[in-house]
Amino acid sequence: MSERKRANSKVAVFGAGSWGTAFSVILADAGNDVTMWARREEVAAAINDTHENPEYHPGTELPHNISATHDIEKAAYGADLVVLAAPSQTLRKNLTDWAPFLPKDVPLVSLMKGVELGTLERMSEVIAHVTGAGPDRIAVVSGPNLSKEIIRREPAAGVVACADEDVAKTIQARVHSPAFRPYTSTDVVGCEIGGAYKNVVAISTGMAAGMGFGDNTQASLITRGLAETARLAMQLGANPMTLMGLAGLGDLAATCSSPLSRNRTFGEKLGKGMTTADILASSHQVAEGAKSSHSLRELAAKVGVDVPLAQYVDDVVSGAKTVSEILDEMLERPTKAETE
Amino acid sequence: MSERKRANSKVAVFGAGSWGTAFSVILADAGNDVTMWARREEVAAAINDTHENPEYHPGTELPHNISATHDIEKAAYGADLVVLAAPSQTLRKNLTDWAPFLPKDVPLVSLMKGVELGTLERMSEVIAHVTGAGPDRIAVVSGPNLSKEIIRREPAAGVVACADEDVAKTIQARVHSPAFRPYTSTDVVGCEIGGAYKNVVAISTGMAAGMGFGDNTQASLITRGLAETARLAMQLGANPMTLMGLAGLGDLAATCSSPLSRNRTFGEKLGKGMTTADILASSHQVAEGAKSSHSLRELAAKVGVDVPLAQYVDDVVSGAKTVSEILDEMLERPTKAETE
Repeated sequence: MSERKRANSKVAVFGAGSWGTAFSVILADAGNDVTMWARREEVAAAINDTHENPEYHPGTELPHNISATHDIEKAAYGADLVVLAAPSQTLRKNLTDWAPFLPKDVPLVSLMKGVELGTLERMSEVIAHVTGAGPDRIAVVSGPNLSKEIIRREPAAGVVACADEDVAKTIQARVHSPAFRPYTSTDVVGCEIGGAYKNVVAISTGMAAGMGFGDNTQASLITRGLAETARLAMQLGANPMTLMGLAGLGDLAATCSSPLSRNRTFGEKLGKGMTTADILASSHQVAEGAKSSHSLRELAAKVGVDVPLAQYVDDVVSGAKTVSEILDEMLERPTKAETE
Repeated sequence: MSERKRANSKVAVFGAGSWGTAFSVILADAGNDVTMWARREEVAAAINDTHENPEYHPGTELPHNISATHDIEKAAYGADLVVLAAPSQTLRKNLTDWAPFLPKDVPLVSLMKGVELGTLERMSEVIAHVTGAGPDRIAVVSGPNLSKEIIRREPAAGVVACADEDVAKTIQARVHSPAFRPYTSTDVVGCEIGGAYKNVVAISTGMAAGMGFGDNTQASLITRGLAETARLAMQLGANPMTLMGLAGLGDLAATCSSPLSRNRTFGEKLGKGMTTADILASSHQVAEGAKSSHSLRELAAKVGVDVPLAQYVDDVVSGAKTVSEILDEMLERPTKAETE
């Protein structure tokens, strides 16, 4: 336990959503004092008063070394590790507000899984551009880590990636709890592309399930989807082994098979013939992958990689094509060698 | 359609089990005349009289270009393609009976997924040793192909592997039906190890589910399991890309997520604390992976590859360890870099 207990180790977690809260539990269980910043004052108050996040994890008692605040300066003050857990498409705006208060020279850990629309930047690139931090201060945590299971302390594993391996190891020690086993990596790009792409693949498997297809079809989509993810990631400089690992296949398998996944559920509704507008009207929630299918498609076009699956998903999400048209296109492709 | 229709093209399918029957439907849909050999005379009679396999696919009408016989010589006569669909552990005995009647110089296609106990031979090796056929006559079909979905003509894809690429292409054309899309490969070893190992990994994810763990844990097992599969396969000469493809990840993802998988169900029962003897007593069925976990472990030891997952599964199947002991061992391993 000695590596888990240390004095004066404060972590600031910016974002009190589902994953930000679950990751705070990992940090607290690993012996850190955690201060969460919540966008809404009443959420911060509820966490402090009831030791519970009523919005995302009602009924779960949070460890008492987690506190919360709506005050950015208070959240950041004295932290020797900062964790960022904003929605991918609002990170730039949020981080612009937070940046002036962040302690200099402490590592910034990204929990986001997306690619920014318009700029086509990965989350670590947004962080670098907004804060001026170098690659040795920017890390990513990814893996098969469904929040609802993490907060129940089910055994899980993940990857801590940073260009500077020593920094990755330092963070690894800070997030190693009895239920969470972190592995280190230096492949930030691979982890980020894997994390963003898996939401797109999950929408495609959901679409297939919504159309009534079974596990053979879904398994084929997972396989082709991971190959597509690896092609794009490698073109961007990633190590293909990362995509075979927890932040690639692991995250993908968890997301595609879980009924807890918003992206899969969103895809199922598309597969049943609902439009994105219908789904929005009924649930007021858009899955991350709905946006990432477009930004990843654009990013792939920019670097010259063919990504049929992201195209199909983007076309259905945008309403450019129907699921039936997509199916016909997929079945009409010629047969060939598998690795062509 | 022209490539699917040809005169006088007879395929002999030896084995009228679940997968042998479903694969016969693919062959028939692709325009071949199919003669199935059934171990039991009454099954052959039922297929001929009712166009249905009452044992494995009751209620499904088989195409009328499928007939069946219990007579080995009749089944084999005039076939220009032979498909073998026996249980892995009885193939050698079955094939010894069939071999004298098989036409010379026609390709032999293996549908089996296992490694023989004792000899530690892959199915293509057993075929070579029993029939004397060279590698240019022995092919393997594998992929995410759950029989119950195949027979419903849900869209599916698979791999046809043969050391001789031209032979693989010939077979590809013979098995390309409206619902089944075959890709070619020359990596017989990769396809066979992927097919056998996925049953072992499916038992391990079933065990985790039976113990009450969710999708994070199961996704981690799938990830570590595929890495273990790839390590062993590469040591035996396989192409790692095969394991990333339909016959590796694809087959694994379908098997691990399907409630139709016997191996997964077997693992769930072990996870709930039943012994192999308990399960046998209640269902009279042993999953292929229960035997493969032992033969793959032995094969790995023989070639010097570390396979913790196959060991864990074999130890629980044999009763050498309990699932709780296994869990403790897995959680106690030290943390490290992911690719170490």
